Amino acid sequence: MRIQAKKPIKLRGKIIGGEAPLVCIPIVAAEEPELESQAKNIAELCPDIIEWRVDYFKDVCDLKMVKKALKTIRDIISDIPIIFTFRSSLEGGFLEVKDDIRFSIIEQIINTGEVDVVDIELISGKAKIEKIKRTAKTNNVPLILSYHNFSKTPSVEFMLDKIKQQVSNGANIAKIAVMPENEEDVLNLLSATLKARKDLPDIPLITMSMGDLGIISRIAGGIFGSDLTFGACGKTSAPGQIPITELREAMKPL
Amino acid sequence: MRIQAKKPIKLRGKIIGGEAPLVCIPIVAAEEPELESQAKNIAELCPDIIEWRVDYFKDVCDLKMVKKALKTIRDIISDIPIIFTFRSSLEGGFLEVKDDIRFSIIEQIINTGEVDVVDIELISGKAKIEKIKRTAKTNNVPLILSYHNFSKTPSVEFMLDKIKQQVSNGANIAKIAVMPENEEDVLNLLSATLKARKDLPDIPLITMSMGDLGIISRIAGGIFGSDLTFGACGKTSAPGQIPITELREAMKPL
Repeated sequence: MRIQAKKPIKLRGKIIGGEAPLVCIPIVAAEEPELESQAKNIAELCPDIIEWRVDYFKDVCDLKMVKKALKTIRDIISDIPIIFTFRSSLEGGFLEVKDDIRFSIIEQIINTGEVDVVDIELISGKAKIEKIKRTAKTNNVPLILSYHNFSKTPSVEFMLDKIKQQVSNGANIAKIAVMPENEEDVLNLLSATLKARKDLPDIPLITMSMGDLGIISRIAGGIFGSDLTFGACGKTSAPGQIPITELREAMKPL
Repeated sequence: MRIQAKKPIKLRGKIIGGEAPLVCIPIVAAEEPELESQAKNIAELCPDIIEWRVDYFKDVCDLKMVKKALKTIRDIISDIPIIFTFRSSLEGGFLEVKDDIRFSIIEQIINTGEVDVVDIELISGKAKIEKIKRTAKTNNVPLILSYHNFSKTPSVEFMLDKIKQQVSNGANIAKIAVMPENEEDVLNLLSATLKARKDLPDIPLITMSMGDLGIISRIAGGIFGSDLTFGACGKTSAPGQIPITELREAMKPL
């Protein structure tokens, strides 16, 4: 029995922070036809949740097009919960978009009521986080505050501190994704996860060590307190994501 | 690419300490007919290596019967390398047998030239280890010195020290198997493995965290420096061993 979050969050029937980590597939399409076929392929794999990485979508700054694409996704995936993420290029986002435009799109998409979770970076700063937090709360959409490091794995203390900052800044779900440079970094990410799960028992957590070396954290992170893991259906949104079928197979004995 | 041992050991074409951890199935039969059927089932699964846990064999104190059973196994498994282990009841052995009888059987079985590796406990003490070591060396059989703790996981320092003692006492392969009481213990076993791999770069290592909580160490131990993992074919020889087919499936993405 893994350590669960004391306050798990229900998302259209799926529970993040519950008995088993959720398996999430990212949508990373540039155009509508690709988006449609990705959504169809993903729906067939029945992930617990999907993340729409809208920063891969070429019309991401056109609210009308984003709304249309979101409707396309929702129609195809039906009741699978959606994490809406317009990732900053500072933290791995695909397209470079001005913050004002980015946050305006995020706010208006939350207001559609069609997304179930929203993810923004902790680095966005208090003012922007507060604003999104208010909109998210109004729409009953849980907020992920995230930290990414694509070049290295900071110390256990640094990672734990980031998670604590995410919580103190209003995150309903905390997320860190870091790149290991060696095997010790992978153990450090798992150790930071376990410490965070103990120090902050309430909140669901999402953590991963990226790249090939970190694959084990995507398979086994759930044991140490991570409540969601990403599997791929074709295209990946971050290094180290493995096909969801392989991921599920590897998670089976745990 | 995992960290390999600088001095891997070749066993009938299989390499312990090489590119991938070896997958081993234990034979844990009480009588000849069961032993024969276990060996047949195991051979079909093509493990890299098998361990004959002779302490499960009811005629273990009868050299003639042990030799006959060994011949049965060898005839069935053909060229699969065999670890011969007459485990002490102090460290998880099935039958309680006097040390003098136990070590006499071990010596005489090494002298048959039919086993490829021999495993005895570090706790056996210098004199007994020296004697077995000499016989093993004469027969060109690598020696595993092992440490087991079925009730808890000692500190990282303690485990690392055990491995260092195994090496200084003449082990060609070092082994520790410990029981986790919580998630941190599992990370500690993996951390001790990684430290041992760095401090003692030459020697192949076998480490595992037992029980359900430790299953991840059986799947992913190879990343951190463990060179052999146990999968089950029916009966297990220690808590936490999962069926070899599941084990192999889970190891695939790593």
